[in-house]
Amino acid sequence: MTDDIDARGSDAPTPGLDYRAAGVDLDLAERDKEGLKELLASTRDARTLSALGQFGGMYAVPSDVPDPVLVSSADGVGTKLMLAFETGVHDTVGQCLVNHCVNDILVQGAVPLFFLDYLATGVVEEGVVNDVVRGVAMACRENGCALVGGETAQMPEFYAEGEYDLAGFIVGIVSRSGIVDGSRVQAGDRILALPSSGLHTNGYTLARKIVFDRAGLGVNDPFPAADAGPDAGPDSSPDSGQNAETVGEALLRIHRSYLPPLRPHLEAGSIRAMAHITGGGIPGNLPRSLPDGLGAEIRKGSWTVPPLFRTLASLGGVEEDEMFRVFNMGVGMLVVLAEADADGVLEALRASGEAAWEAGRVVEGEGVRFV
Amino acid sequence: MTDDIDARGSDAPTPGLDYRAAGVDLDLAERDKEGLKELLASTRDARTLSALGQFGGMYAVPSDVPDPVLVSSADGVGTKLMLAFETGVHDTVGQCLVNHCVNDILVQGAVPLFFLDYLATGVVEEGVVNDVVRGVAMACRENGCALVGGETAQMPEFYAEGEYDLAGFIVGIVSRSGIVDGSRVQAGDRILALPSSGLHTNGYTLARKIVFDRAGLGVNDPFPAADAGPDAGPDSSPDSGQNAETVGEALLRIHRSYLPPLRPHLEAGSIRAMAHITGGGIPGNLPRSLPDGLGAEIRKGSWTVPPLFRTLASLGGVEEDEMFRVFNMGVGMLVVLAEADADGVLEALRASGEAAWEAGRVVEGEGVRFV
Repeated sequence: MTDDIDARGSDAPTPGLDYRAAGVDLDLAERDKEGLKELLASTRDARTLSALGQFGGMYAVPSDVPDPVLVSSADGVGTKLMLAFETGVHDTVGQCLVNHCVNDILVQGAVPLFFLDYLATGVVEEGVVNDVVRGVAMACRENGCALVGGETAQMPEFYAEGEYDLAGFIVGIVSRSGIVDGSRVQAGDRILALPSSGLHTNGYTLARKIVFDRAGLGVNDPFPAADAGPDAGPDSSPDSGQNAETVGEALLRIHRSYLPPLRPHLEAGSIRAMAHITGGGIPGNLPRSLPDGLGAEIRKGSWTVPPLFRTLASLGGVEEDEMFRVFNMGVGMLVVLAEADADGVLEALRASGEAAWEAGRVVEGEGVRFV
Repeated sequence: MTDDIDARGSDAPTPGLDYRAAGVDLDLAERDKEGLKELLASTRDARTLSALGQFGGMYAVPSDVPDPVLVSSADGVGTKLMLAFETGVHDTVGQCLVNHCVNDILVQGAVPLFFLDYLATGVVEEGVVNDVVRGVAMACRENGCALVGGETAQMPEFYAEGEYDLAGFIVGIVSRSGIVDGSRVQAGDRILALPSSGLHTNGYTLARKIVFDRAGLGVNDPFPAADAGPDAGPDSSPDSGQNAETVGEALLRIHRSYLPPLRPHLEAGSIRAMAHITGGGIPGNLPRSLPDGLGAEIRKGSWTVPPLFRTLASLGGVEEDEMFRVFNMGVGMLVVLAEADADGVLEALRASGEAAWEAGRVVEGEGVRFV
């Protein structure tokens, strides 16, 4: 916190205050904006009508989507940001944020149009801001999404030097007839699982308590192997080779976007519901994708919980139920398909390099039953 | 900051960690969400297709806007939030945020469709979150804008108890032919000014230094009268009766929305450019509304700077140039009109109760010249 002027109680004459003395540097903000302009430009497409500098980002509504519906979502990175502060790696959290938002609207059938970020910091550190926004811009490009604007707020009273908060806002589009709302889901439908890359963006408050406070590890220490023994899972485990990872690297793994593997199946109309596994885990997210009166049976034996999660459970002494309620446990996205479609989609996903598996099925009832 | 478990260095057996012990209460978050649902419902219109609980907010693109362009903006409330913490008044900052965002897209000719908020806090205090979101919802209703969703993030590591950060994202719409981009502006055009209600959402870092650190005032003290003597301005001054105001009330005055007074003139197509006077003041905002090669002459004598700003200048010993660079100085919005239209629009604004005045004109050159 910059607080270089405190004249309270002083009788001596004090110089006049200005904005820079009060901790806000408008010129620096303008300089950074120049760097950001180029980053934003790299994400633009033909429908992007404006750049940073004007007040609002402009984006033409695509004319090839009949009966268009806009799907929007706001999200933050949460305490995963602490890992960025602790490691000095600032170019991945923006990717996590964008991919998280893309997944959140994907589950309703929408593909992204544009994105805006909100970056709040105590002091503008030129390199850090640009690192963060470069990550945002990179993920926007990868998802075919225009970064049309954002806000970089300087709030010396709120954030410590070197710290910041980061939130994002996405708008996507879907034809009204293509909205995925779970209404076609029936008992007997199959549930496919797509692997997560790590914690994604949830459970960091608990994960940090376990790793730093309880186990006393530092970000540069090797991430400990799981007590549960060698990973018995398939080669597809995102944890292969994790022994070489530091704690910081393991916890900063980038939240995946499921748009590339799922887009063809979304366009084919075969997907009946999707659940992005975020805060609340599988039990907190899958049920709200399903209609009233239907629940899910998920076979825990259908996948090996990745070592990352087994290590956290072991170091923290966390009960399995709580682990499944807080973390994604290796499952980033669940996809509900008619029995007739499931095998074909699974095969196609695997052929495209996606390590998907069948994790369960829809049943009469409510909630998630692990079997 | 909740930090009720610190087992580092302890050899005694410690209980297993769970999410609540780590400072995040998922059940409380769910309860709050129930209260928020009703607030969001109060802002919905026929084009709003979804409520909170699903991942993304859905909003049908209006079919009556030819060649539709989406205009979006992200913004925060900034350090004005400190006043909310200090006074315990949490239902106005959300209004400031929405109105700020509405104005930011209004200057490009867009009317709002929907809004999402991002509220980040250390601990979820049920009353405070609902007060903040109630303010957001109220302003959304007033601006004909649906509050389709948002994110309430619990981050015990980031925010002190009772503190939060608040950002907002707005999406509006304009027909491509109705975009206001300043391209029709010509030398000789008239510039009308619409009064601000107070600081709006800019300059709070400096204002707080002046009022609290330098002058040693508290939020409940009466806001001091300006040294410059009695207000010689018209009755339209938003500061009439300010002597009864406390420091907290004076600094928390709600950022105005200029959509109601300007909408008819926007729809009539008479507005050539608009500048929302935010950070950077008139010199920082008006020029980017004007085409290259054109600047503005603003007559300082055309209005009386409200006592609020004169008091800040006097208490802080702030130079006039710096005051105009940081604060809006009583001008919330500038509107550029052809000479032939200016008198009629000014008369109509005044007839509708808007205390507008003619503040200057467009000239050859660059930037703003105060005369």
